Amino acid sequence: MAKKDKQQEFVTQITPRSEDFSKWYTDVILRTDMVDYAPVRGCMVIKPYGYAVWELIQKAFDAEFKRTGHQNVYMPMLIPESLLLKEAEHVEGFAPEVAWVTQGGTEKLDERLAIRPTSETIFCTMYAKWVQSWRDLPMKYNQWCSVMRWEKTTRPFLRTSEFLWQEGHTIHATPEEAQEETLTMLNVYRDLVENVLAVPVICGQKSEKEKFAGARATYSIEAMMHDGKALQAGTSHNFGTNFAEAYGIQFLSKDGKLEYAQETSWGVSTRLIGAIIMTHGDDRGLKLPPRVAPIQVVILPIAQHKEGVLDRARALKAELEKAGLRVELDDRDTYSAGWKFNEWEMKGVPVRLELGPRDIENGVATYMRRDTLEKGTLALDGIAGEITALLDQIHDNMLNQARTFMEEHTTVATNMEELEAGVQTGFVKAAWCEGRECEDEIKEKFNASTRNMPFDQSGMPSDKCVCCGKPAKKLIYFAKAY
Amino acid sequence: MAKKDKQQEFVTQITPRSEDFSKWYTDVILRTDMVDYAPVRGCMVIKPYGYAVWELIQKAFDAEFKRTGHQNVYMPMLIPESLLLKEAEHVEGFAPEVAWVTQGGTEKLDERLAIRPTSETIFCTMYAKWVQSWRDLPMKYNQWCSVMRWEKTTRPFLRTSEFLWQEGHTIHATPEEAQEETLTMLNVYRDLVENVLAVPVICGQKSEKEKFAGARATYSIEAMMHDGKALQAGTSHNFGTNFAEAYGIQFLSKDGKLEYAQETSWGVSTRLIGAIIMTHGDDRGLKLPPRVAPIQVVILPIAQHKEGVLDRARALKAELEKAGLRVELDDRDTYSAGWKFNEWEMKGVPVRLELGPRDIENGVATYMRRDTLEKGTLALDGIAGEITALLDQIHDNMLNQARTFMEEHTTVATNMEELEAGVQTGFVKAAWCEGRECEDEIKEKFNASTRNMPFDQSGMPSDKCVCCGKPAKKLIYFAKAY
Repeated sequence: MAKKDKQQEFVTQITPRSEDFSKWYTDVILRTDMVDYAPVRGCMVIKPYGYAVWELIQKAFDAEFKRTGHQNVYMPMLIPESLLLKEAEHVEGFAPEVAWVTQGGTEKLDERLAIRPTSETIFCTMYAKWVQSWRDLPMKYNQWCSVMRWEKTTRPFLRTSEFLWQEGHTIHATPEEAQEETLTMLNVYRDLVENVLAVPVICGQKSEKEKFAGARATYSIEAMMHDGKALQAGTSHNFGTNFAEAYGIQFLSKDGKLEYAQETSWGVSTRLIGAIIMTHGDDRGLKLPPRVAPIQVVILPIAQHKEGVLDRARALKAELEKAGLRVELDDRDTYSAGWKFNEWEMKGVPVRLELGPRDIENGVATYMRRDTLEKGTLALDGIAGEITALLDQIHDNMLNQARTFMEEHTTVATNMEELEAGVQTGFVKAAWCEGRECEDEIKEKFNASTRNMPFDQSGMPSDKCVCCGKPAKKLIYFAKAY
Repeated sequence: MAKKDKQQEFVTQITPRSEDFSKWYTDVILRTDMVDYAPVRGCMVIKPYGYAVWELIQKAFDAEFKRTGHQNVYMPMLIPESLLLKEAEHVEGFAPEVAWVTQGGTEKLDERLAIRPTSETIFCTMYAKWVQSWRDLPMKYNQWCSVMRWEKTTRPFLRTSEFLWQEGHTIHATPEEAQEETLTMLNVYRDLVENVLAVPVICGQKSEKEKFAGARATYSIEAMMHDGKALQAGTSHNFGTNFAEAYGIQFLSKDGKLEYAQETSWGVSTRLIGAIIMTHGDDRGLKLPPRVAPIQVVILPIAQHKEGVLDRARALKAELEKAGLRVELDDRDTYSAGWKFNEWEMKGVPVRLELGPRDIENGVATYMRRDTLEKGTLALDGIAGEITALLDQIHDNMLNQARTFMEEHTTVATNMEELEAGVQTGFVKAAWCEGRECEDEIKEKFNASTRNMPFDQSGMPSDKCVCCGKPAKKLIYFAKAY
């Protein structure tokens, strides 16, 4: 059974999840060529296979931003220190992790320039210049760019000094409009993360402690990774007039009064790739959701030296591509079929199609779906439609599996013992007094943080705070988090 | 004629090209909301209308890069000084314009980090790690990102401290393959700039003086702006093994020998937007080539308060969009038709469609094409096909007009007087001895530089160098340049 040995050997290059989840993650991202470490501390190189996933994420998200009335712009990456200092909470939150440019060419700069950690300060400066009247509102802009936060501990996709993201920044005439925008974009995120990435999330509002530096309210979507930890997958902030007052964004209202604009911002980043990997991956490697898989179908010709096999495989590829599918034909003759099976399973391609002389004779192809590892046959006649339907089934199954996992790993706690036990393996719903002290104590004792307060606040497990026992005010999720 | 007065007043907000070309350019880019100045020295804010052009350029170029076998990646924006120093010519060329990060958070860095002015150094470092055998070759990667060059004199799109671009970096096993790649990508640029942006270019090789810092050979496409100056619109470099030797990019050849990889790089940037504006624009403002115009057709309902007009206009918009066209319906009732005509002409929308009650009665729409300002009528029945064809005609006409302009403003010089006269209004073809001294003298005297040596070297106007009179070796273009 030389073949089986080889498979075995191949698979053991990835540490099992149960043995060491963190090492499993590193093995997977490096072995599948998603990413590599860069020769700059805390930075990553996104390799073609990883970047292709990001491009598909961008495409889906950008289309939805445009459909909801947003336009893309590009703001400079450098921000003068004086601009950054205008909003006190904001600078306090970000200053410790800013990379500073102090020299330009041969010239020592009079004022330090920050590489943007986020661009509220520069958007606000421009909005203050651009807005005069209520007629100019709303302005709903977004940019795709990289940002820099000088992190001490880093891990590719999850937390790096530089990462890619989008940041939407909007200004509105009324608080109601700003709040509607904030929640609309949170819902856009939820929809895309669930229905494109097949990653289920919980939606809600962040605590005062966990909200964005300078925001009046922050909302988040939180996903559960396979080790039970939370990953904040996207945030949407309502700033009220907080930044507008600091940066002087004023407009003449319909009534002829000078008013401050209401502002929002929202963002997702290459973290989403980390979320995909840690939600769906297994001991064989990646399991990519079909809608962002760079390769949705890999065709493996069997006995490809035999007459007609490669030609038929090429025709099959062309037919599937014509139907809009992303297809790879692996006709390398330097690797065995067994090796290739493992390789493409590890790379998480949703559907494998084998096509050999006997298949062709019978007018079928043999498929294997990566999510369940089930095999079957499909008639070559009309196969594109069948595969398209199969990919949708795979998406649905992956989303359902992940949702079931999340539900099974979410517990309810009414005391600190239950809370401690629950956060070892997943999310914990608990009643909370809204006190910062309780959040700090739980963080200190269990290394767990509040994730968010769900919009549906019904079903409070207790009328007392899980930590201090005082009257509870909010239902909130606790978890260990990335 | 109050209407005419208003039009006149509106148009005079743009300085005529003949009066002050530089001021015309600034008026156009600011008045049309392409760009704004940023609160950071030498940087620009790309506004929605300008960024939408960039997105369309990206889409066209990226598709062609992929079709020619390239994959996208993302490399970190910061480069440790020690990496930058490895290739002597390269660092000499770029060091004077590098922005340096010296502080990360609260920590003073041991080693300065450059914000990438270009990414050869980091690509080379990764390639050295990734390549082992000839089987790994070629590697053909590209990235879309922003780069930073600390410029003293800046102008939006043409020369700014930060700009957006793509940089392709490839490594190959043989010099022949690298040279083929270099010229293939030059040709891809020529094809796209001419057939998508409608900007004609001359192709050729740069002189030793003008080539990229660290390249063995640099090739360029050069466009002629409406003031007769050259704009380098794209470059493609063959590095030979120059960087590979400095960075240790070695591979085991088929014969089992350790060899250095052959390398290329090539790039275009947001400069292309400047090229579009200064090639096609006129005293009314922008004239956008249809294939990258964010709005290809603007529909102006006439007497839109009358029953049925707006409904029919909306149906027309939907029909055109269904045919894949980018359409705006300007139904603002706060502006006069005359004001709107001027606005959309200034913004360079290729086709204007007017639709009033009488048009609808007659089953037609009245069009105006921006390139010639000609008006006519089109039957509403089957209009999408007609407009699609019209946009192609407009593209062809814009390309032809620009090509004719370039030809009419290209002269031949056999002496310095003719050269001096020629570079006042356009390009000059001349014979050249290949001496750096002659390039320097011409730059000093006439502020003109060599642009490139065309591949077709036939038709040398003289066997003596236009400057020193020594035997001529090359036919080359001279021009004043952006």
